[in-house]
Amino acid sequence: MDLSSFLTSLGTSCVIFVLLVLLFSWLSKKPGNAVVYYPNRILKGLAPWDGGSRTRNPFAWIHEAMSASERDVISMCGLDTAVYFVFLGTVLGILVISSIVLLPVLLPVAATDDSVKSTSATTSKGTFSDFDELSMGNIRAKSPRFWAFLIAVYWVSFVTYYLLWKAYTHVSRLRAHALMSPEVKPEQFAILVRDIPPVLQGQTRKEHVDHYFETIYPGTFYKSLVVTDNKEVNKIWKELEGYKKKLAHAEAIYAESKTISKPEGARPTNRTGFLGLFGEKVDSLEYYRGKIHELIPKLESERKITLREKQQDAALVFFTNRVTAASAAQCLHAQMVDKWTVTDAPEPRQLIWANLKIKFFQRQLRQYVVYFVVALAIVFYMIPIGFISAFTTLHNLKKLLPFIKPIVNAKALKTLLEAFLPQLALIIFLALLPKFLLLLSKAEGIPSVSHAVRAASGKYFYFTVLNVFIGVTVGGTLFTTFKTIEDEPNSIVTVLANGLPGNATFFLTYVALKFFIGYGLELSRIVPLIIYHLKRKYLCKTEAELKEAWFPRDLRYGTRVPGDMLIVTIVLCYSVIAPLILPFGVAYFGLGWLILRNQALKVYVPSYESYGRMWPHMHKRILASLILYQVTMFGYFGVKKSVCAPLLIPLPILSLVFGYVCSQKFYRFFQDTALEVASHELKEIPNMDQVFRSFIPLSLRSEKNDDDQFEDALSEQAASRAGPFV
Amino acid sequence: MDLSSFLTSLGTSCVIFVLLVLLFSWLSKKPGNAVVYYPNRILKGLAPWDGGSRTRNPFAWIHEAMSASERDVISMCGLDTAVYFVFLGTVLGILVISSIVLLPVLLPVAATDDSVKSTSATTSKGTFSDFDELSMGNIRAKSPRFWAFLIAVYWVSFVTYYLLWKAYTHVSRLRAHALMSPEVKPEQFAILVRDIPPVLQGQTRKEHVDHYFETIYPGTFYKSLVVTDNKEVNKIWKELEGYKKKLAHAEAIYAESKTISKPEGARPTNRTGFLGLFGEKVDSLEYYRGKIHELIPKLESERKITLREKQQDAALVFFTNRVTAASAAQCLHAQMVDKWTVTDAPEPRQLIWANLKIKFFQRQLRQYVVYFVVALAIVFYMIPIGFISAFTTLHNLKKLLPFIKPIVNAKALKTLLEAFLPQLALIIFLALLPKFLLLLSKAEGIPSVSHAVRAASGKYFYFTVLNVFIGVTVGGTLFTTFKTIEDEPNSIVTVLANGLPGNATFFLTYVALKFFIGYGLELSRIVPLIIYHLKRKYLCKTEAELKEAWFPRDLRYGTRVPGDMLIVTIVLCYSVIAPLILPFGVAYFGLGWLILRNQALKVYVPSYESYGRMWPHMHKRILASLILYQVTMFGYFGVKKSVCAPLLIPLPILSLVFGYVCSQKFYRFFQDTALEVASHELKEIPNMDQVFRSFIPLSLRSEKNDDDQFEDALSEQAASRAGPFV
Repeated sequence: MDLSSFLTSLGTSCVIFVLLVLLFSWLSKKPGNAVVYYPNRILKGLAPWDGGSRTRNPFAWIHEAMSASERDVISMCGLDTAVYFVFLGTVLGILVISSIVLLPVLLPVAATDDSVKSTSATTSKGTFSDFDELSMGNIRAKSPRFWAFLIAVYWVSFVTYYLLWKAYTHVSRLRAHALMSPEVKPEQFAILVRDIPPVLQGQTRKEHVDHYFETIYPGTFYKSLVVTDNKEVNKIWKELEGYKKKLAHAEAIYAESKTISKPEGARPTNRTGFLGLFGEKVDSLEYYRGKIHELIPKLESERKITLREKQQDAALVFFTNRVTAASAAQCLHAQMVDKWTVTDAPEPRQLIWANLKIKFFQRQLRQYVVYFVVALAIVFYMIPIGFISAFTTLHNLKKLLPFIKPIVNAKALKTLLEAFLPQLALIIFLALLPKFLLLLSKAEGIPSVSHAVRAASGKYFYFTVLNVFIGVTVGGTLFTTFKTIEDEPNSIVTVLANGLPGNATFFLTYVALKFFIGYGLELSRIVPLIIYHLKRKYLCKTEAELKEAWFPRDLRYGTRVPGDMLIVTIVLCYSVIAPLILPFGVAYFGLGWLILRNQALKVYVPSYESYGRMWPHMHKRILASLILYQVTMFGYFGVKKSVCAPLLIPLPILSLVFGYVCSQKFYRFFQDTALEVASHELKEIPNMDQVFRSFIPLSLRSEKNDDDQFEDALSEQAASRAGPFV
Repeated sequence: MDLSSFLTSLGTSCVIFVLLVLLFSWLSKKPGNAVVYYPNRILKGLAPWDGGSRTRNPFAWIHEAMSASERDVISMCGLDTAVYFVFLGTVLGILVISSIVLLPVLLPVAATDDSVKSTSATTSKGTFSDFDELSMGNIRAKSPRFWAFLIAVYWVSFVTYYLLWKAYTHVSRLRAHALMSPEVKPEQFAILVRDIPPVLQGQTRKEHVDHYFETIYPGTFYKSLVVTDNKEVNKIWKELEGYKKKLAHAEAIYAESKTISKPEGARPTNRTGFLGLFGEKVDSLEYYRGKIHELIPKLESERKITLREKQQDAALVFFTNRVTAASAAQCLHAQMVDKWTVTDAPEPRQLIWANLKIKFFQRQLRQYVVYFVVALAIVFYMIPIGFISAFTTLHNLKKLLPFIKPIVNAKALKTLLEAFLPQLALIIFLALLPKFLLLLSKAEGIPSVSHAVRAASGKYFYFTVLNVFIGVTVGGTLFTTFKTIEDEPNSIVTVLANGLPGNATFFLTYVALKFFIGYGLELSRIVPLIIYHLKRKYLCKTEAELKEAWFPRDLRYGTRVPGDMLIVTIVLCYSVIAPLILPFGVAYFGLGWLILRNQALKVYVPSYESYGRMWPHMHKRILASLILYQVTMFGYFGVKKSVCAPLLIPLPILSLVFGYVCSQKFYRFFQDTALEVASHELKEIPNMDQVFRSFIPLSLRSEKNDDDQFEDALSEQAASRAGPFV
């Protein structure tokens, strides 16, 4: 790829970005779109924006995002989001501070040497872009100029250590602050107990659990909630809720049809068969009412059966104070580790009930099986990605698919295609993965959504970095250096180092595309806007349906982080080789920080809170990228036959020691709640009944006479049934 | 070494053993020796043996040792000793059950083949012992007879898994039983807190600690005991105790000298200089009294200074119930892991006060430094050991030191020397090591003696197995196969496998020597007996001195286990190659079990109790030996070009999985106390003051007016001093 196609790609992306921002400024001012652009504020009962709508500056959002404090972010979008901003801020800091030294020093050093020009005659193709003159590739082998680059590698590393340490301390403080909050949070009073051993003869499971914890915590044990298999009851409950919605919808249609001219209205009808398209035609109102009437007693009886017969060997145990709950979640309770396993309870909304019953060793086995599957996937996806990257240079495409020659030869199209094709292929491919990985992570038997998201995010990271970065770099040079790898399979570091400069422009374009188009779409929210307006016009009849149509999703940091990490890896690895990539990295994280801050403050609503548990993973991955960078640089210096190469060996070791010290010092607090934190005073005496009820799934809450029935069922069962649960 | 020298060695050892046993039977019946042969019983206030001394059968001890239950062992010698017997029993079980199948099957299979005879013509020396015909070395390459040996390897492995699993379950139950004992044990009410952060202005360290734990455990916190630097006060206290003993000694001499003929007696004198041999001659009684008079106020003032000024950032914290203490010892208290580090308190008698003040990261650093030193030692001791084993074959000695030829050529002497020389060299060398390793382990900053012993024992194990077993095996074949190793450094498994059969007799002799001589000396206690009688006759004047002279040491399982493990490794590795080693292994562990049981019941007094924490290490090491055995067998099958070799690959993997499952299931209970165990009821309400006082070191206990002063000093200081401890 030469300079012109790069500039074309950059220019096009930039124009699209500007257009999207203008579109956002225009659309977001319309009151009818407020629910799309300000749903988080609206849900919190705030006005879409402060001050009158007339006087609003179209770029006020920039000022608002910049001036919002971390506390605002936490209160609007939760701690996890704030931690994500710490991540963005830390990376931005690393890149900015690196740029300040690297750009003014390395660019002149590289530009004044002439390795590229002098060797271009001897290379096979001789198509060197103008960028290469500003990169390390332009330095002659064995040149003393490498000292400057060596110092640059050390500078980047130490900046990273310093900022990572600061960030870890900061996040640890944020987490402590959130956990010591005087608000009553139900999950802080509960623990999750799994692997409950078979109950003794003449005892119910609930008695068993109660007795066990009553003995150990005589003063502070409150109550237990035995986990049940809710599959059946959930199904009925969902069906019932579906019919209720449909009934409301039909009623709204009926009410609408009662115009003045036709006061009796037209009763809506529907078909009972597949998708409402086939089968007998019936009166909707009556049909739905009948269905609801039929389902309510069915749900009620299934509820009772579930509570009595479908108890699993897991339970939630409640304590009357936070310290006991925090301490109970960390302690070994039974002699054998695979009995009475305890963990801290996740929030009620993110508990994965179906996973709770999975046994200790089965969880371990599942985990290893999943790791194995992911490892296989990583290895075997590497091949197609390598081919994609090798094929999608137009030169290769023309050779392999001669019929596309006429299309490709059109000058403008060629430039455009050459600029976007490989990057688009990559982005689409990467978009398909997260769902699959989340599914796998849930299959491991993880008890909470946030944990599953973290696990999936980790897999996605390895996938991305290994496949995209190493795959493309090695793959891109595959056709030229295939022989080398075949001869010495462990020369991968050298191949990687050799491949880096040639792929610099590919990655430059990738980064630019990602931040201009990606963040442009993110800010303008065109897709949600269109969907909302279509739904509003044609589908939604009731208030509830309308709210469902605009209700925002959450920030999805789980999939954002691996994407960002790919950029971090790319930018770090190229930071010294081709320092020109640094401004792009800065732009990516700067724009990202700004635009996502706007989204966090105004759009997204967190769907769970893990109290910053994502941070250690982010920290570890930045460090992993740094180590990859240091190793690659060692390889690259070696390729360039520089005498400095051995001086780079201490760096990866230093990084490992740094990582070890950090995980020793900070990590455990991200697994367990420190007791000094939990022992802070609460604002009020917790309403334990409310805490307990908040963990009962919706489908098990009886609607008739408050929630009493749930408890009745449990205590009834405790009294009447004895034994058969063994 | 040929058959005759082996039989000589075996015969000599056996005769010595029988003599020692007879000596024991004779000596132990004499009432004057009771304190040497039955000190444990005497200390517990029991008669040396049950029944009258006249009627005692000289071999009654065998019956008593056999019939003693595990409960007896625990009550006489503590849980750690009982766990050591589980270890002996498990290994014995493995060897016996293996023998039952291996001996009748493999010996005939090996004896009826003829590889040794047919190839002996082609080998360089042609000195094959008769044993080799009964070993796997006698099987021709590629013979189908290897299937029998393959099945034998699997049999041994599965027997080991089964017995290890049973033993782990059993020890876990023993530990639980000991921990849930209704007796009040002070260490179960305390935790050890280290890395206390700097105290705030205007607070003493004690207030700081008290406030911290009072907040977290409002109902159950009892008191704290801040750790002090006792070096100075201990020194003075020891000096004082020394003078007190000397005074008592001198008084006894003076009293003795007052015979009827000379009623005024002779006042004993001594010299004040070095070792009492130089300097001015003084009257002992006055001199010692003067010294004691001088030291008491000095000790008192140093005591006060220590309590006030020499406080360290560690403390013992006491709780009013076991569950809270057990739970507090497991929980994360502070946000940063390197602050307020908690562990369960060891027994007062085994607390290493000097190590308590060492900081978190310093401990880690020290640990790695020690590991590094040990690794260096292992690698560099390997060279001399290899040479010892190569030199000490007489053949080599004669060649290298021609002047010893006449001595060596004497037939009887030659056989004897050839039989004992290498083994003696080995045993003496191994005897020098443990002290050094214990010193290193204490330098890691470990807070309790039992933990340091475990750490040293682990190092000793690696030392022994790596150096002795691999060193001798590889070293013994070094002169013949040095070229092979030089060419392919990773052919060590092959070299090891090749070296095994040639060294079989060496190890047979080693095992026999060790159990006959070692256990003979152990049972007869000749050395302690002689020392006791000498001391009693010439040195001891007072009752206290006499008691000191016969007071038994403990079982020292820390150094026994690595020695036993070496035997386990040797016997396991040879079990299939030369099954004849199995009876020797059975004899070693059988005799060991019997004789040590006698010693545990009657002689040794445990000096600390770790509640069976040694077991996971024993378990892991038996498994490590098994894996070494499996890998060696794989190498040996490969050397023999058997088609079965690949079928051995699953075994090491299976062993790793087994080890992983065991450590997952059982290990944590050996680190932490399970709460369900701690929640068992106590026999009485614990006297907390007594619990607290039991942790105060002897040197800090004031003798004058009970122990009140200690508390006074602490509370006084709390009131009067404010601030300067930052």
